[in-house]
Amino acid sequence: MDMRRAIIINPPQAGVRFERLPDENRPAPNQIKVRAIYTGICGTDRELANGLLKHSIPPEGKEFMILGHEVIGEVVDKGKDVDEFEIGDKVVGLARRRCGKCLSCEMGRPDLCETGQMPIAGVKGKDGFMADTFNDEAKFFVKLPDTITDESAVLIQPLGDIIKAVYTGINALNSRFTWYCRDSTLRCRTAMILGTGSTGLLFSMLLKTLGLKVILVNRRGPTSAEESITKSVGVSFLRIDEELPLVDLLIDTSGSTVSLLRALQRVRPNGGVILFGFGLGDESTFKAQHLTDLVYRNILVLGSAAHGKIHLEEAVKQFEIIKSYYNEAIKKMITRVIYPEEAIPYIMKKQENEIKIVMKWR
Amino acid sequence: MDMRRAIIINPPQAGVRFERLPDENRPAPNQIKVRAIYTGICGTDRELANGLLKHSIPPEGKEFMILGHEVIGEVVDKGKDVDEFEIGDKVVGLARRRCGKCLSCEMGRPDLCETGQMPIAGVKGKDGFMADTFNDEAKFFVKLPDTITDESAVLIQPLGDIIKAVYTGINALNSRFTWYCRDSTLRCRTAMILGTGSTGLLFSMLLKTLGLKVILVNRRGPTSAEESITKSVGVSFLRIDEELPLVDLLIDTSGSTVSLLRALQRVRPNGGVILFGFGLGDESTFKAQHLTDLVYRNILVLGSAAHGKIHLEEAVKQFEIIKSYYNEAIKKMITRVIYPEEAIPYIMKKQENEIKIVMKWR
Amino acid sequence: MDMRRAIIINPPQAGVRFERLPDENRPAPNQIKVRAIYTGICGTDRELANGLLKHSIPPEGKEFMILGHEVIGEVVDKGKDVDEFEIGDKVVGLARRRCGKCLSCEMGRPDLCETGQMPIAGVKGKDGFMADTFNDEAKFFVKLPDTITDESAVLIQPLGDIIKAVYTGINALNSRFTWYCRDSTLRCRTAMILGTGSTGLLFSMLLKTLGLKVILVNRRGPTSAEESITKSVGVSFLRIDEELPLVDLLIDTSGSTVSLLRALQRVRPNGGVILFGFGLGDESTFKAQHLTDLVYRNILVLGSAAHGKIHLEEAVKQFEIIKSYYNEAIKKMITRVIYPEEAIPYIMKKQENEIKIVMKWR
Amino acid sequence: MDMRRAIIINPPQAGVRFERLPDENRPAPNQIKVRAIYTGICGTDRELANGLLKHSIPPEGKEFMILGHEVIGEVVDKGKDVDEFEIGDKVVGLARRRCGKCLSCEMGRPDLCETGQMPIAGVKGKDGFMADTFNDEAKFFVKLPDTITDESAVLIQPLGDIIKAVYTGINALNSRFTWYCRDSTLRCRTAMILGTGSTGLLFSMLLKTLGLKVILVNRRGPTSAEESITKSVGVSFLRIDEELPLVDLLIDTSGSTVSLLRALQRVRPNGGVILFGFGLGDESTFKAQHLTDLVYRNILVLGSAAHGKIHLEEAVKQFEIIKSYYNEAIKKMITRVIYPEEAIPYIMKKQENEIKIVMKWR
Repeated sequence: MDMRRAIIINPPQAGVRFERLPDENRPAPNQIKVRAIYTGICGTDRELANGLLKHSIPPEGKEFMILGHEVIGEVVDKGKDVDEFEIGDKVVGLARRRCGKCLSCEMGRPDLCETGQMPIAGVKGKDGFMADTFNDEAKFFVKLPDTITDESAVLIQPLGDIIKAVYTGINALNSRFTWYCRDSTLRCRTAMILGTGSTGLLFSMLLKTLGLKVILVNRRGPTSAEESITKSVGVSFLRIDEELPLVDLLIDTSGSTVSLLRALQRVRPNGGVILFGFGLGDESTFKAQHLTDLVYRNILVLGSAAHGKIHLEEAVKQFEIIKSYYNEAIKKMITRVIYPEEAIPYIMKKQENEIKIVMKWR
Repeated sequence: MDMRRAIIINPPQAGVRFERLPDENRPAPNQIKVRAIYTGICGTDRELANGLLKHSIPPEGKEFMILGHEVIGEVVDKGKDVDEFEIGDKVVGLARRRCGKCLSCEMGRPDLCETGQMPIAGVKGKDGFMADTFNDEAKFFVKLPDTITDESAVLIQPLGDIIKAVYTGINALNSRFTWYCRDSTLRCRTAMILGTGSTGLLFSMLLKTLGLKVILVNRRGPTSAEESITKSVGVSFLRIDEELPLVDLLIDTSGSTVSLLRALQRVRPNGGVILFGFGLGDESTFKAQHLTDLVYRNILVLGSAAHGKIHLEEAVKQFEIIKSYYNEAIKKMITRVIYPEEAIPYIMKKQENEIKIVMKWR
Repeated sequence: MDMRRAIIINPPQAGVRFERLPDENRPAPNQIKVRAIYTGICGTDRELANGLLKHSIPPEGKEFMILGHEVIGEVVDKGKDVDEFEIGDKVVGLARRRCGKCLSCEMGRPDLCETGQMPIAGVKGKDGFMADTFNDEAKFFVKLPDTITDESAVLIQPLGDIIKAVYTGINALNSRFTWYCRDSTLRCRTAMILGTGSTGLLFSMLLKTLGLKVILVNRRGPTSAEESITKSVGVSFLRIDEELPLVDLLIDTSGSTVSLLRALQRVRPNGGVILFGFGLGDESTFKAQHLTDLVYRNILVLGSAAHGKIHLEEAVKQFEIIKSYYNEAIKKMITRVIYPEEAIPYIMKKQENEIKIVMKWR
Repeated sequence: MDMRRAIIINPPQAGVRFERLPDENRPAPNQIKVRAIYTGICGTDRELANGLLKHSIPPEGKEFMILGHEVIGEVVDKGKDVDEFEIGDKVVGLARRRCGKCLSCEMGRPDLCETGQMPIAGVKGKDGFMADTFNDEAKFFVKLPDTITDESAVLIQPLGDIIKAVYTGINALNSRFTWYCRDSTLRCRTAMILGTGSTGLLFSMLLKTLGLKVILVNRRGPTSAEESITKSVGVSFLRIDEELPLVDLLIDTSGSTVSLLRALQRVRPNGGVILFGFGLGDESTFKAQHLTDLVYRNILVLGSAAHGKIHLEEAVKQFEIIKSYYNEAIKKMITRVIYPEEAIPYIMKKQENEIKIVMKWR
């Protein structure tokens, strides 16, 4: 029997291991067999490996779970009912699956699941993608064009989350009254992004292609990689303790309540706030004035996590656009490419100056 | 020269007086002269009278300002260019006026003014409506049907704020994905309202007519008036320290950050929060878990203040509906009707068990 | 065994009869038993009685069908699982039911059924409401407030169709760019309505309450009833062969392709057209210039039939508003109230000057 | 004095000439001077050259007009107030300018101008872009990324019209009820496009990238160029007299009323129709059944012409995506590249098998 390499965890316990598992059988009628090419390591993977995601559980009836929800792979086999893919197609996968109960899940929007019981591949109740091969339902994959081939494509999955957050936020702002400028574009709008990790940087690139002016904010000065990226994208960089400008849109990827409440005071009337980063651990005093500001200024705040298939399809396309505008910056976002055999320390702990670590499977 | 009775203040100083002012001349070509029938007293009036609204100023070139932004009146004269009103028409007035700079104001939405420089009749930079008569631009008034005649009609203006908040909130929730139930209505949705003052009660009635289940929450048990109103409307009443149910929509009219953060934990994934009450003065600790909840649950939060003309027009109609469903409750909301000559103590300080105090001008 | 009076047809054959049918058993767990108070006669009833609706069929396994889809009734019994109604509640019923296949139907929007296989009570594959009593699923009924009691309430069901058409049309117009005026309302917009039957008149009242100016158009001059109604509502009346003004919104209730194409030339750029009336039988030449006008002027055309439960709920409320504004006009719309025993000739043929005929069941 | 080559017309008279005009002075403070690189020839140019656009007029005070509204150029000089462009930037231009009166134009949406008095560069009342150089207001241009350099980029301007039509149409369909499929995408939807010219082909590519299945329809079989393009894009081709499938979206680029009314019968309930092609000259009988179908099936029809700046910005990005998916097809769409000196016969008359002719200016 053939074996496949895999990265496995035992949620909610801490611990992550490189192992060889037996290959799966041929895919079921509605499944494809995917051979992983690249997988990305994300903060959630680290939380799982360190036992910090207390609500995580392995798939039903199993004691361990394959890690990973950011994958670029190739279709190497398919069930008889699958006609949307051909052998050899490159694909990216959806992590969130349906809870089977709520309307959002039924309609293909498990990112808005109302029961909280949706499985998430590699995160909760369903094997993930860090394995040489895996069988999975075809409908949870999106085809990539042939022009997308290198390791930076692992950014497409997190870009899906960002696409959903930004599109949903701008739609919501427009739903009360036009939020566009007098020339019909978004060029009069300024966004401030808290946090300069891979998501903060991807937000900045997407917002630039949408026409907004962008300011990145962090508690520290930029690393050299960040400096080089922000310069080539054309965004400015401020420290959170500097005087912050008034902005129309605030995006938090930092998860710091201290930074958030400080920056909140700089959001203009009729403005928006997108909350994207999970709480980091700090806390802050929410004062009467914060509440009054939100009300009196008619500010709209959107918490946003995960994405639907439509956003992943859009991410594939927007990734092409971002690469055509900011190719150098995208390349610099991949800090290192490693092999599965050497991945454990990178999964356990964030490296200094790391933006994104990619695992190469073949 | 004829004189008119008026309630005046000297913002931002504390103090409020009953005075007799000279009558104004005939209205300008685009103006109507309105004779006040009823004016309502609102929390903002009290803040002004007590000198708590530090950013308030009198109209340009004047030292005092006529108070009042909730009025039902009758058109008693009109300029030659006014064709949308006839002498004898009953009207309700818009408080917010245009800043002259931003797009929202240009488009008739000074409630979303981006400069913060819009005048507000009776509140900031423009005389209000607590006077026997006043001239004002016709376009800032909405006609009432003849069926609306009693003192409860002063609730239409605050209902305008509530209409805007609810419609904007539900539109925003629907803008990301349908928020309606499987039968196309809102009957599967539950709203929890913090605060049981006149705005909390009006919110509860509007939401009931929209099909939602409603729970009112306060820090104390209900007064007898509140108990009678909530019973006839068909909403339940909880104390904030009881176990709160999970809800789809949370509305804060209390301005208490403590109550808000406590209730926030009970908002379901894909749910909404409407912030309506200005900060009352307390503060609370905003923890990492609060932030994570907002993000992970994809919660949408809308700060909402004031309204546009379209909402005031809608408030006139929805007030008819609310009265046809909850006529008894509406009557009980008017705690007392007083004359202008006796108004000062009622403006300075909220009475025990007060829901709404109305001034009768003739 | 008790008997109930009913009006029955044998679709798709012509013919309509008054009969006495055996009473039904007690309602199933999810059903209510409704006792009809009033039923309205509509053009579709006439087409069925005259055998003109070729795609109509009786309920499965039956040879005849109870006619009628406009009903006001009272709940006289209910199944054990029904908690949204009490005995004695007044209700209005939904005609369209779910096809069981398409997403629209699953989501409570059988008015947008994509298979065309949805049953319609009294029209196609499901018994209607012209009977002393009938059992039906509770979820297809909407409660009426106690203030709605007279025969004009049969207009609520057709108002549901009109509500859906107008709200959907204005939403669609707003979906591309704000269609509101510089004061945030619809007061700068003018609508022209083709046809002055009961639907044309209801459209005119609804649009007036929304703030639009309204012009009614017919091929002939107004009857005295129409003249009296339009005068009290405040709309003007033109003959189709007069010079028609430019308008922002055109609504066809006439079903005449000749009138439609003539009026289409008078729709302004960025305007809308709502098609509501089924084709009457005439035909007209669609020229290249008609097509160019639609494209060059960016005109949006919406065909609209039927409604969802949310629109019927809204119709109940808007009917209150319309009555409070135009009570006299509404009363004049009920041309005659008849008993079921005398109904057949009224069902077979439209009476001269008829606007709406109502059958009174008790 | 330096001279510049230009193509000029004398609207509304027939006739088109190649001429040398004196160079313009330096650009005004808010202007850029653009040096044309490529211009495209479009059907409207032909109508103008042949005197068929009767409402066209030259710019005020002039007797002739420079033709051309599809241009790719380079910024060679700029006024002192222009900071959004640098010398050397590649740009694409907006044709429609503001009427100065209506709200749409004020808000940067002259594509929805309500007065019909907006100037259109190269078409009506304003010089166009077929000249070596021209001065124009900077705000009417959009920057191109450096990756867009070849002659196919002249397709971006017509793609702007297509983007607006498709996005507006899908938004309008979604504005009444979700038009997305059970997996949140548009993959269950089928579009049928009438006409296989350059616009029909661009529509097919855009719709494919949005996930729809696409069928192209023409009155004749495909040319070899069309066959090669449709094969590489993956769309099928039918003749209008074949049996047409049921579709969810119908797009007319043909301008033939005969084809349109024939295909209209194949649009499913809850479907949409986008009218894009101006009337070609034929006429057809609009029957009662056509009207009934539109109403009973709840079909939404959108006439769509021109675009706003936001759509042109989007077209730049979508063109990148289309090229990355269908590079071969895009190349085949440029039938021939010619020099200005030889352009007159190509402007006067469509060539056999022509898809798009491009003029190269340097």
